[in-house]
Amino acid sequence: MILFNSDYTEGAHERILRRLAETNLEQTPGYGCDNYCLQAAQVIQKLCQREVQVHFLVGGTQTNTTVIASLLHPYQGVLAPDTGHIAVHETGAVEGTGHKVLTLPGREGKISAQQIEEAVRAHREDASAEHMVQPKMVYISQPTEFGTLYTRAELSAIYQVCRAYSLYLFVDGARLAYGMEAPDNDITLPELASMCDVFYIGGTKAGALFGEAVVFTKPGLGEEFRYMIKHQGGMLAKGRLLGLQFLELLKDGLYWELGQNGDKMADRLREAFREAGYPLLVENRTNQIFPIIPDEHLARLSESFGFEYQKRIDDSHSAVRFCTGWATTEAQVQALVDAIREINK
Amino acid sequence: MILFNSDYTEGAHERILRRLAETNLEQTPGYGCDNYCLQAAQVIQKLCQREVQVHFLVGGTQTNTTVIASLLHPYQGVLAPDTGHIAVHETGAVEGTGHKVLTLPGREGKISAQQIEEAVRAHREDASAEHMVQPKMVYISQPTEFGTLYTRAELSAIYQVCRAYSLYLFVDGARLAYGMEAPDNDITLPELASMCDVFYIGGTKAGALFGEAVVFTKPGLGEEFRYMIKHQGGMLAKGRLLGLQFLELLKDGLYWELGQNGDKMADRLREAFREAGYPLLVENRTNQIFPIIPDEHLARLSESFGFEYQKRIDDSHSAVRFCTGWATTEAQVQALVDAIREINK
Amino acid sequence: MILFNSDYTEGAHERILRRLAETNLEQTPGYGCDNYCLQAAQVIQKLCQREVQVHFLVGGTQTNTTVIASLLHPYQGVLAPDTGHIAVHETGAVEGTGHKVLTLPGREGKISAQQIEEAVRAHREDASAEHMVQPKMVYISQPTEFGTLYTRAELSAIYQVCRAYSLYLFVDGARLAYGMEAPDNDITLPELASMCDVFYIGGTKAGALFGEAVVFTKPGLGEEFRYMIKHQGGMLAKGRLLGLQFLELLKDGLYWELGQNGDKMADRLREAFREAGYPLLVENRTNQIFPIIPDEHLARLSESFGFEYQKRIDDSHSAVRFCTGWATTEAQVQALVDAIREINK
Amino acid sequence: MILFNSDYTEGAHERILRRLAETNLEQTPGYGCDNYCLQAAQVIQKLCQREVQVHFLVGGTQTNTTVIASLLHPYQGVLAPDTGHIAVHETGAVEGTGHKVLTLPGREGKISAQQIEEAVRAHREDASAEHMVQPKMVYISQPTEFGTLYTRAELSAIYQVCRAYSLYLFVDGARLAYGMEAPDNDITLPELASMCDVFYIGGTKAGALFGEAVVFTKPGLGEEFRYMIKHQGGMLAKGRLLGLQFLELLKDGLYWELGQNGDKMADRLREAFREAGYPLLVENRTNQIFPIIPDEHLARLSESFGFEYQKRIDDSHSAVRFCTGWATTEAQVQALVDAIREINK
Repeated sequence: MILFNSDYTEGAHERILRRLAETNLEQTPGYGCDNYCLQAAQVIQKLCQREVQVHFLVGGTQTNTTVIASLLHPYQGVLAPDTGHIAVHETGAVEGTGHKVLTLPGREGKISAQQIEEAVRAHREDASAEHMVQPKMVYISQPTEFGTLYTRAELSAIYQVCRAYSLYLFVDGARLAYGMEAPDNDITLPELASMCDVFYIGGTKAGALFGEAVVFTKPGLGEEFRYMIKHQGGMLAKGRLLGLQFLELLKDGLYWELGQNGDKMADRLREAFREAGYPLLVENRTNQIFPIIPDEHLARLSESFGFEYQKRIDDSHSAVRFCTGWATTEAQVQALVDAIREINK
Repeated sequence: MILFNSDYTEGAHERILRRLAETNLEQTPGYGCDNYCLQAAQVIQKLCQREVQVHFLVGGTQTNTTVIASLLHPYQGVLAPDTGHIAVHETGAVEGTGHKVLTLPGREGKISAQQIEEAVRAHREDASAEHMVQPKMVYISQPTEFGTLYTRAELSAIYQVCRAYSLYLFVDGARLAYGMEAPDNDITLPELASMCDVFYIGGTKAGALFGEAVVFTKPGLGEEFRYMIKHQGGMLAKGRLLGLQFLELLKDGLYWELGQNGDKMADRLREAFREAGYPLLVENRTNQIFPIIPDEHLARLSESFGFEYQKRIDDSHSAVRFCTGWATTEAQVQALVDAIREINK
Repeated sequence: MILFNSDYTEGAHERILRRLAETNLEQTPGYGCDNYCLQAAQVIQKLCQREVQVHFLVGGTQTNTTVIASLLHPYQGVLAPDTGHIAVHETGAVEGTGHKVLTLPGREGKISAQQIEEAVRAHREDASAEHMVQPKMVYISQPTEFGTLYTRAELSAIYQVCRAYSLYLFVDGARLAYGMEAPDNDITLPELASMCDVFYIGGTKAGALFGEAVVFTKPGLGEEFRYMIKHQGGMLAKGRLLGLQFLELLKDGLYWELGQNGDKMADRLREAFREAGYPLLVENRTNQIFPIIPDEHLARLSESFGFEYQKRIDDSHSAVRFCTGWATTEAQVQALVDAIREINK
Repeated sequence: MILFNSDYTEGAHERILRRLAETNLEQTPGYGCDNYCLQAAQVIQKLCQREVQVHFLVGGTQTNTTVIASLLHPYQGVLAPDTGHIAVHETGAVEGTGHKVLTLPGREGKISAQQIEEAVRAHREDASAEHMVQPKMVYISQPTEFGTLYTRAELSAIYQVCRAYSLYLFVDGARLAYGMEAPDNDITLPELASMCDVFYIGGTKAGALFGEAVVFTKPGLGEEFRYMIKHQGGMLAKGRLLGLQFLELLKDGLYWELGQNGDKMADRLREAFREAGYPLLVENRTNQIFPIIPDEHLARLSESFGFEYQKRIDDSHSAVRFCTGWATTEAQVQALVDAIREINK
């Protein structure tokens, strides 16, 4: 059985395990106040080419919730695509901190500057504005839940609207490695850092055992964020595990290589799906592929491969998700390609 | 520099690192739905000698908050010693979920059945009861923040009061390994499981990279706890890391050996402190030692050893905490013992 | 200027003011523990023809929030029409207590048993159910935000689904007086009480200075609700003001008469709008009317009459809301009817 | 039976009832956007002799919670006397918004500038500060729960510390009328306004049916407070009821007269208690009196008079509270004085 269910089915890149073993009995202060975290933050700052505040957290939902709750007043909410992770797959963690997720209809997982502007203006112009949640932040993912990417022009337009209307822009980068390395990506890391207020570099889905590096890119934000992490129960005792992993991932560009691997393997699968005549629900070049496949083919594939059901398309077809990742091997992909060919022979 | 600041200054026991490496590229389902978690839960159930519900979380504050918020109604609070971790050192994480921590004056970190009964009766008999937070849970730690232990008789009395007044009893076992192995402990794991509603077996401070195993010991509790974990942002994507670590820790009694090591090393230090004529702030037999030391001695010790300041005792003496642990070596302890002797020569 | 903006533009029915004056210097216990509240609860119980638990709150948002937060676990949410008051016009008060409002697309403000069943089944059948908010309650209004009514058959079907899937059914009755007295209403109060778990009888919009009477109709619910009211900051010191008002409203059927007045006045307006050829955005027989009116006519009407803007229909037409109520007089309605005729002459 | 249980046993001053009746059928916009609220805010601004932001809420717990939650970040808490209303008698309403109440031991209900400074410094100097709730606000009551008053010097010292350490100072004025009119009060309203960041003028306990006027005295605070009120479920539909009542209370100094009445009646009772040889638990000159009375005398008094039990003093004596108020008459006081004399004859 080969699992293409997600990009977190395996452990960590071997270099990370090696570093964990090498440093295992070193004694360090707890809670992220160690040198590894310090150094990793400096590396990230250098990569961003601007002064930033870096904090390390364990997982994505925790990160989204902690960032959002740290910046909003109780009566403020966060605009997000209706398919956004915070809107759908976090069991109401953001609401748990008291904030409403204000959804906008996404297009292949993306929302536009215009939608945001209209939503904020509609709120401000409403005579009953005080009776409604005040939009104060925009949450988007790069890449999105559908593996699609915001272009530099799109992101820039969104950030312009955010600045014009005093909204924070928060970019969920759980799969940033795959986004950055996609052939059609036109945004560099420094550009990303300059076009939002806070984003994160996802480790969990790109070679780390766990870990997300939150980057506050604007002065004044994130200053008391450590209180907030603790308040949300997210402060890791052996914090150096986070710093150490990011330090290793960002050394010699390993992180980007891992992203590239996922994207390349996905491209191979996309080609096989096209060859088999399976249309794609969404076009993208990152590590998630959403083919529409005859149900009987799916039944056969599911004997040897894991994937995620998405939705029924018609009586005999369903959309599913295959996800490659930093650990996906050519052999795994070839096995799937062969199986697809065999079924379509 | 040798750190005695805490029991989480090092990484993990080598057997754990080895298992992580061995299983690293296995593909498993995420979020704790893997076989390692399943097996670890079964091992714990067997050790508890009763039917239990086991869930794995990453850290202590997260665990405390999630358990407490999962069992209380909004207007209910949790009784705890005024020195309890949830009352002092969690940046209001419990309050963040809307619940008040109702503190009782602790005696060396412990509260008594009588105190609990009096608090609940005072609440119920108050004509303004509805204007006050309703006590509905008791939170204690075994061992406590001061390394002291509840005896079987004390715990039994507390649980009896809890049942009589329909309170949940929740035992924080972040340092359970050290408590269980203390020479003066008279409670077995099955007894602990039978004398509370929920407790946890701490991994972070006893040989794991991280991880706490929550054990609901009464039927009906913990059934939808996975929703709660996710809601609180505490569900680890690569959940098998938790199951795997506990599986290894609980194999061949490694966990208890690690606890024993911490306690033994602490005993060695306690003896050295006594020999030096340093009184102890609190008597205990677990892995935390609280000597009262002349300030000038502390100054000299602090050149080579890390420890935690507790409080000023008089003009020239302070109480500090030295913490041993699963990873503390004889050599580290001997170095400290030698230094103490040298200073007191 | 005559205001048709809402049904809370005036104070209270004169009988209520009189009773307030008559009893003004009586000394009573506070917080709703007085005889007026007790008697009012008994009257409501008798009207419902079943054993119920009655509590009095000051306002609607407070009532919705307190009821919802009292019944749900942190990871549970409430299904509601996307136009529901809790979803749109409460500044995130429900989210403020940690719960997500799970919206379903409403049809003229209403949702169906089928929609609810589909939503719950979709949740339960989803392999990632634990990663999503668990639907546990249904919130509807009778009448809805659009003045429409659930029929007995519709409500019964909804409640059947709720029982089948263990959901609470909560009916917002802020405008219940107008709903009950509508010519097309086919639900009696005892029937309503039997077909939900909790509902409220709105006073604010039907002749009281303020006040909503929450009625828990199923055993076991609402027992510690007074703690919850206080926890939410909603317990009125001079609670007897609430009991007294409801006692007077429900005496000799005054409450229903006031509802009837609003509905009748609305019918008169509806006829005038039809006569003028203004189509209605929504058909209903309660006290809110939503005509679509040429903008230039609106400009003229707005010189003498207050109403609420709803939305633009086309380049030259807008939908607005005229609201009658318990205090609306024939003279006020006639003035508006005359104005409409004058404009359309 | 004459009730001295509280200062909210009666309705409202007759002038208020009269105004309610006179204006009853006026049509006004809802939610506090009416002219009465506007005018009342202007009157309060004039009385404060500085630019302020005024908002009207219904009750005290609601006011405390809404103000506190509007100013703090999630990880911040509010320092308060351990006997403070928010610490004891609000069923965890403040915690319900996620904030910890950080209690300081009160002395007759009061805390000192020094205690506050020490608490904040202890927090800041603690190496684990981030693991503890950050003190960011001070909550005190004038008069306190024990009827005692802060002197101008004390309040000034507290505010100085607050400014030095960037803490908000919030003064609960639920009984401000009685405090201001006490013979030993040396703080004027403009002085109070200048020596805190936000306070409120209590209406519920001083002649109104209900209502508290929140006054933000520093620029920038309170600007989006209406969102916050609605978010907390505290926005009254017929908001003019609040403005109207305060307008009437503050006209011709009625509010202060009512406060004076309570204080004078209390003085009469205090004298009777002294004459009877009943010591007072706390010395004060406001409307709450805390005599220590032989239990058998209490038994006899309780046949004709209501009062509140406080605590047992010894085997045969208890401390109780008698509360006078705006509505207390000479006849009521005389009846109690006579009864005391009769018992002690």
